[in-house]
Amino acid sequence: MTCRPENVARITASFGAQSMMHSFGASLTELTEGCCTISAPILDGNKQQHGFGHAALTFGLGDTAAGYAALSVMDPQDEVLTAEIKINLLAPAHGDRLEAQGHVIRAGKRLISVEAKVWAVTDEARVQIAAMLGTMVPVRKARP
Amino acid sequence: MTCRPENVARITASFGAQSMMHSFGASLTELTEGCCTISAPILDGNKQQHGFGHAALTFGLGDTAAGYAALSVMDPQDEVLTAEIKINLLAPAHGDRLEAQGHVIRAGKRLISVEAKVWAVTDEARVQIAAMLGTMVPVRKARP
Amino acid sequence: MTCRPENVARITASFGAQSMMHSFGASLTELTEGCCTISAPILDGNKQQHGFGHAALTFGLGDTAAGYAALSVMDPQDEVLTAEIKINLLAPAHGDRLEAQGHVIRAGKRLISVEAKVWAVTDEARVQIAAMLGTMVPVRKARP
Amino acid sequence: MTCRPENVARITASFGAQSMMHSFGASLTELTEGCCTISAPILDGNKQQHGFGHAALTFGLGDTAAGYAALSVMDPQDEVLTAEIKINLLAPAHGDRLEAQGHVIRAGKRLISVEAKVWAVTDEARVQIAAMLGTMVPVRKARP
Repeated sequence: MTCRPENVARITASFGAQSMMHSFGASLTELTEGCCTISAPILDGNKQQHGFGHAALTFGLGDTAAGYAALSVMDPQDEVLTAEIKINLLAPAHGDRLEAQGHVIRAGKRLISVEAKVWAVTDEARVQIAAMLGTMVPVRKARP
Repeated sequence: MTCRPENVARITASFGAQSMMHSFGASLTELTEGCCTISAPILDGNKQQHGFGHAALTFGLGDTAAGYAALSVMDPQDEVLTAEIKINLLAPAHGDRLEAQGHVIRAGKRLISVEAKVWAVTDEARVQIAAMLGTMVPVRKARP
Repeated sequence: MTCRPENVARITASFGAQSMMHSFGASLTELTEGCCTISAPILDGNKQQHGFGHAALTFGLGDTAAGYAALSVMDPQDEVLTAEIKINLLAPAHGDRLEAQGHVIRAGKRLISVEAKVWAVTDEARVQIAAMLGTMVPVRKARP
Repeated sequence: MTCRPENVARITASFGAQSMMHSFGASLTELTEGCCTISAPILDGNKQQHGFGHAALTFGLGDTAAGYAALSVMDPQDEVLTAEIKINLLAPAHGDRLEAQGHVIRAGKRLISVEAKVWAVTDEARVQIAAMLGTMVPVRKARP
């Protein structure tokens, strides 16, 4: 099921307003109802001490994908906040780029349960490097 | 209890080798046995869509502080990896700088349980913005 | 700070209505504003395969203590639900009894962040066996 | 892929040695390589204050299913311990019985990442009530 057009527009705008996503070189590559995919290279400035992608990069992509998956099923006047999220790191972030996919497990009125997976991708392989499970909350924007 | 000198040296070196910490403008400000503090400004390139610090920044500082807290109690030939960590975001990352403090809850031979807190700090206030709970594992470095 | 009398009464009543707490032989031993302690023996029917207390017992006591810590700061007409909680198991549940203490980290209007610790207690020792971090939500009771 | 026969035998024996599983009235209903299903009624003694199944029951079934999923891929001389696990509660435990399914996400030598789902089941419906994500560790049994 594809995302409602008004949600595509506000999610694209929200993503574009995140300077961290710019710094990560990330792009929002897919958006359907309850599911969002984000992709980013492993830039030289985003590594840990062994030269792999930093956990903050993996976390940031997965959290953002999960957040926009949640936002895609919310009322158009809501914004999304991460209440909490857990990440299990399964393998080093080693590859040409990372791909994070978030999706909604259950959409309640006040809480949206989400999960995300992150993969390290090369031409030859696609290795899952993280699993995430968390909770997003809708935040009503103040009216002017 | 202060950290053994050889651990201070290798943790400082490891921290310096993380390009992500450079990109965040982070500094390791305190290190004792089982406890580590890291501080960073909220740079323009590290924000979310409302202009607050990004969760990836908060996470990255807390995870790194928790990791080096764990490394400070490990054997000198070990490196540290985050197996998993959970973050509860308590308030927006809004302030002059963020301060993350990690400490060891229980140090086992194979698993080290850690927690971390992150605060947003201004001249007037110090507000806790995140609580984290996770698991670090020692990784034996290959010998040449 | 001690708990408001109306909250003591409803928490005591709610605890008494949990058949699982009866099955565990648990008692609510302390209740102050934002903090709750529950104690239980390790009964023969609540063990895992090595004869230690089962993780479901440790979890149940910690989750319940955290939930009532949250309820103690809520409006009197609200009930409490666990949205999510994470448990790190630090040591086997081996002792005369378990003691769980929950407390509120941050009380928001819609989400209450909590943590809990569980100890195994004997006459000689008190060993922390679990650390927990979670999120409670207030649920408005239907009016008659 | 079906489970190696020696693993079926030791997992069945281990499950049978858990008095908590007896108290819950639980049965191990399916076991394949990396996957385990456990089923239990919601007994009168295992409820919370509103008459639904207690979170300790949901947690206990999910954690045990995830643990045996992990044990099914370990060396025959190993035992399994839960290092940590997170549970997101999605809906009340309301139905004729609960069914928990654990499976292995990634099997490392020292850590096994697992997830579990729990459903409340009636003749008419099967509703997912919990999602779990955790870490299991192999423990080498002492030799005689």
